[in-house]
Amino acid sequence: MPNRTTDFRSDNVATVSPEILQALGRANIGPAAAYGDDEYSRELDRRFSALFETEVKVFPVSTGTAANALALAACARPYGGIYCHEVAHIHTSEGGATEMFTGGTKLIPLPGDGFRLQAQLLAETLAQAGIGQRHKPQPDAISVTQATEHGTCYSLDELHVIAELARGNRLRLHMDGARFANALATLDCTPAAMTSRIGVDILSFGATKNGCMNTEAIVVFDQSLIEGLSYRLRRAGQTWSKMRYAAVQLLAYVEDDLYLRSARRANALAKRLEAGLAGLSQARLVAPVQADLVFVELPEPAIAALAAEGFLFHRRSPTRIRLVTHFDGTDEEVEQFLAAARRHLN
Amino acid sequence: MPNRTTDFRSDNVATVSPEILQALGRANIGPAAAYGDDEYSRELDRRFSALFETEVKVFPVSTGTAANALALAACARPYGGIYCHEVAHIHTSEGGATEMFTGGTKLIPLPGDGFRLQAQLLAETLAQAGIGQRHKPQPDAISVTQATEHGTCYSLDELHVIAELARGNRLRLHMDGARFANALATLDCTPAAMTSRIGVDILSFGATKNGCMNTEAIVVFDQSLIEGLSYRLRRAGQTWSKMRYAAVQLLAYVEDDLYLRSARRANALAKRLEAGLAGLSQARLVAPVQADLVFVELPEPAIAALAAEGFLFHRRSPTRIRLVTHFDGTDEEVEQFLAAARRHLN
Amino acid sequence: MPNRTTDFRSDNVATVSPEILQALGRANIGPAAAYGDDEYSRELDRRFSALFETEVKVFPVSTGTAANALALAACARPYGGIYCHEVAHIHTSEGGATEMFTGGTKLIPLPGDGFRLQAQLLAETLAQAGIGQRHKPQPDAISVTQATEHGTCYSLDELHVIAELARGNRLRLHMDGARFANALATLDCTPAAMTSRIGVDILSFGATKNGCMNTEAIVVFDQSLIEGLSYRLRRAGQTWSKMRYAAVQLLAYVEDDLYLRSARRANALAKRLEAGLAGLSQARLVAPVQADLVFVELPEPAIAALAAEGFLFHRRSPTRIRLVTHFDGTDEEVEQFLAAARRHLN
Amino acid sequence: MPNRTTDFRSDNVATVSPEILQALGRANIGPAAAYGDDEYSRELDRRFSALFETEVKVFPVSTGTAANALALAACARPYGGIYCHEVAHIHTSEGGATEMFTGGTKLIPLPGDGFRLQAQLLAETLAQAGIGQRHKPQPDAISVTQATEHGTCYSLDELHVIAELARGNRLRLHMDGARFANALATLDCTPAAMTSRIGVDILSFGATKNGCMNTEAIVVFDQSLIEGLSYRLRRAGQTWSKMRYAAVQLLAYVEDDLYLRSARRANALAKRLEAGLAGLSQARLVAPVQADLVFVELPEPAIAALAAEGFLFHRRSPTRIRLVTHFDGTDEEVEQFLAAARRHLN
Repeated sequence: MPNRTTDFRSDNVATVSPEILQALGRANIGPAAAYGDDEYSRELDRRFSALFETEVKVFPVSTGTAANALALAACARPYGGIYCHEVAHIHTSEGGATEMFTGGTKLIPLPGDGFRLQAQLLAETLAQAGIGQRHKPQPDAISVTQATEHGTCYSLDELHVIAELARGNRLRLHMDGARFANALATLDCTPAAMTSRIGVDILSFGATKNGCMNTEAIVVFDQSLIEGLSYRLRRAGQTWSKMRYAAVQLLAYVEDDLYLRSARRANALAKRLEAGLAGLSQARLVAPVQADLVFVELPEPAIAALAAEGFLFHRRSPTRIRLVTHFDGTDEEVEQFLAAARRHLN
Repeated sequence: MPNRTTDFRSDNVATVSPEILQALGRANIGPAAAYGDDEYSRELDRRFSALFETEVKVFPVSTGTAANALALAACARPYGGIYCHEVAHIHTSEGGATEMFTGGTKLIPLPGDGFRLQAQLLAETLAQAGIGQRHKPQPDAISVTQATEHGTCYSLDELHVIAELARGNRLRLHMDGARFANALATLDCTPAAMTSRIGVDILSFGATKNGCMNTEAIVVFDQSLIEGLSYRLRRAGQTWSKMRYAAVQLLAYVEDDLYLRSARRANALAKRLEAGLAGLSQARLVAPVQADLVFVELPEPAIAALAAEGFLFHRRSPTRIRLVTHFDGTDEEVEQFLAAARRHLN
Repeated sequence: MPNRTTDFRSDNVATVSPEILQALGRANIGPAAAYGDDEYSRELDRRFSALFETEVKVFPVSTGTAANALALAACARPYGGIYCHEVAHIHTSEGGATEMFTGGTKLIPLPGDGFRLQAQLLAETLAQAGIGQRHKPQPDAISVTQATEHGTCYSLDELHVIAELARGNRLRLHMDGARFANALATLDCTPAAMTSRIGVDILSFGATKNGCMNTEAIVVFDQSLIEGLSYRLRRAGQTWSKMRYAAVQLLAYVEDDLYLRSARRANALAKRLEAGLAGLSQARLVAPVQADLVFVELPEPAIAALAAEGFLFHRRSPTRIRLVTHFDGTDEEVEQFLAAARRHLN
Repeated sequence: MPNRTTDFRSDNVATVSPEILQALGRANIGPAAAYGDDEYSRELDRRFSALFETEVKVFPVSTGTAANALALAACARPYGGIYCHEVAHIHTSEGGATEMFTGGTKLIPLPGDGFRLQAQLLAETLAQAGIGQRHKPQPDAISVTQATEHGTCYSLDELHVIAELARGNRLRLHMDGARFANALATLDCTPAAMTSRIGVDILSFGATKNGCMNTEAIVVFDQSLIEGLSYRLRRAGQTWSKMRYAAVQLLAYVEDDLYLRSARRANALAKRLEAGLAGLSQARLVAPVQADLVFVELPEPAIAALAAEGFLFHRRSPTRIRLVTHFDGTDEEVEQFLAAARRHLN
């Protein structure tokens, strides 16, 4: 039997880190300039510039969908094309946000093993994109998700090759980092190594799933994108008046590597699920677990039995479920789930 | 000399009410369903339905701009027209958000004394709108701001006449309630009296300026608008995953009339400014003070001197300034400002 | 050696039918009301209502892209989804027009043998579309192309099954009839049998490729779509002021079955190409020829040799070419091409 | 009593010039490359480059609305602002086309005597536009109409001052030349003098009202606008496949100054109306007649009597009518109208 609080549906079900909640209180003293002209927001730019080892501009926004769609709107023309994996969140799960904020730019989804874009297919597709042909979407950007929607990670080498391709074709490179910290924890590299050093132009920096309170950020590496984006954000209703409360969260999020510690915790829980499921003959892991997501094939009756016991998770097909861990989950929950799975798989 | 914390630039510079900050902590226990499927969000619908004395649906959003533009997008066709006052925030200060989210609906600004739409001019304009003429924007909605951007309020009778006009012309009535609580405090009526009983179809319910943390809400009275709006919000990146933290703020905001108490406090500070300025022969109040906004004409040298002393406010012309009070301001600040004003007006 | 005038690149390279050119002159007498309020435009509605055996509204437009995109904009919500074949012109070749005019509706491309949508896959896809899920495009319309972009035709039975599916799922059914007459000639049925009797809601009625002068039409069967579309057309710059010159073309186009005679002529030339190529062992026809389009696989050197001789056609891959016939082509041209092909295939 | 063919409602009611109709026939020989890759289209660029005394790119489009909205979409960012006169056709009569094609750019209407933008007010407005303020539309373009919607013309000096203002503020200058030829005939200058020499960046070149068949053109002076515009046109359904039939019309339109001769004819008829009406004590001309438009104030009973007799014209208010002449009108029609007016004004 699961705890009352066991919930593998999403990392969105998690709470807010106590450190982040406390930071809100610390910022709640006296008036401050609105719309990001405050001290915390300025500190945020400085802090993240240090983190990414290059000058960046940080725009806090309210959701990952807003981060992705507006980042891409800054990169692509209405008659442009954006290349992404066919399971990319921007293509499958954001209600057409990118189409709306770009003014109708075309998303061009590609297959790819491991739920990652494959550089060779991408290169071939770009070669036949019809540059200069008015009836074809003109390539403007590539969007990679790190970690992917299925919990796999691009290696730094893979990212490097894709970034080269972007540069060679004069495309912008966007990274959907809804689970940026989880990938960072897995690759065990610096934030700069995964972004600025490689050639990412603009990053959706995820924070909500990993302990912030409805606060994400767009981190802009390519300075030429900043001005246009600042207008698009205001126009999108994404320029908070009391911006300091977003800034202070993001500052607390990276302070003392809180974000990494939280991501490592969630990843470890997922690895524990993976290890346990790997030992079950009737379970088949869909992909290696490199973040906080576990996709597993199970017999339909076992899935039904686990759900009947009260375990919460999403079904992706009659025989495939998604389990998501989060920083505030427990080893006990994972063990209970594994014990139940063992039981139902006889 | 002003306090270090005196700031009349906007009510956006205010802090978050302690009660609201505490409520965040109370909600921070264990996992909860994402995207508004949690208990706090359901309670929010119930609580606001009681408050407005009719069944309403509440959609928390991140900014007033998002609230306004998405509420209007639910009401207007791309080839429609939205009637508003020429100083309406949606027309002058939201970066074209309404134009974007509606797909290019035309805002039709009208003059009007006291910064309020005048029913007669509105009626005449609608009569000549060119219904059925394909080259003319087809009337879809009227947007009123209560309290207005200049701190005046529509009387209930004025609202009633405009609502009749909307009904008679089959238009939706939207209320921009960025300062809803301030108007309510001034009119001393119930929320229902100012909205549902009159015929408001959809309300931008302001909360951030009056003590919430970057949280506003769209309150939908017309049930037929709900479904479409729910998709538009998701697509706009305005569906928070950890919605409970917005819901719990809004619940705390109306609990024990906190929102009214805060608004009354801000209004009282503004009335105190008004009373003090009214006694100065060289000062001319631009409009009666019915909310937390004071617009006053002063000699240019006096404005310069007040600014030089460190008082913070916005200039609207060389001889006109805007002073905005907020719930966490003090009588002392106001008195210091008035004393300085007296000094500089000899 | 081809004639100076041999051109298999497209049916767009054709001239205008003499009958249509003459009709322009007949309408060129005295003033007439603008924007479609003239007698010819009214006659057009009557004539096409007779042709389609039900009351229709006809909106002449300047291109097939405008016809498709605006017809679909009348059918789909910005957060909706439109199902089409993966080679559909609206998806591959219209520069994102549908995305623009709809405000970002998602095109959902599906594979299908014979370049036709397969009802079963369509049904399965719709069953998993996520109705009511805010992050998923909500099914709004199905678009079929008749004849398809590869010169195949849906049978009436196939269309009937898809129309049932549309009705059962409350979707609109759009037909891209850029080559409507060619399909009609092949199926040898009435216009009504292929549209109104089956349940097509809105039709892009192609005319330019088959003898008109830059004039296509949207034919609306579902009366509820008319009003909104009329505004969208004006807004799109698609409401011609001198509409009579478009109406008179379309009247001449269907008079004495000119459109069918022209389509039969083009189809016959394509069938002649098909028959000739079928006899060549190194040639492989990609699809049965049911309109004016012939796709054929040839050895790369043969393609090069044919091009070098001056034959004009489009290459779709190193070993695949597209040959398009048109109403004003000649048997001689076809025979010259076949003779050359025989020579180069030794 | 008016002739059966008297019609002062619009210059849109006119026929097509015989020379233009004949040119269509001359081009109707054999196949030609589609989408503007034909010889006539190339000749059009050459011919207009000579006409405007600088290298221009010409894009034929189907309506003036398409010309204006797409030209402006090439000039303005979605978060930009376009300055125009408050009676500008783009603002009052195009169904929101500019808002749609730009993605929601704000039109900023200004008053101005003689229905012309006044440079001084424009300069003052620009000075207060809030450059760099994210909540304000950022100035991107100025649009002037020459001749204006009320039949007045900017002098070359007036245009020059506005063009200077555009340059000084780094804005694009668009000219809505729906009645370009009428203005040219009145100013008696070269096309270059009114455009390229002054600094017009992009021109909506009207042709339909003055004898073409539903064919207008965008003439691009600023080479940097061409590429983006070419994609936008394709996407808007404004790239005709049989482009040669548009090109050949525009070539015939300027050959032997046909366009000027037609415009002079229409203007002369309007001047004759003006002269006749000026002699009537109860008639008041609203503006000097400098094109083919006459706005006149008349007693309501006289207007009713003229309409009752069968004269066709538009009423702009109970006491104001608009009379529009056209190249294929007659002196006799004008005299009949004036005689009737004299009768009814006793």
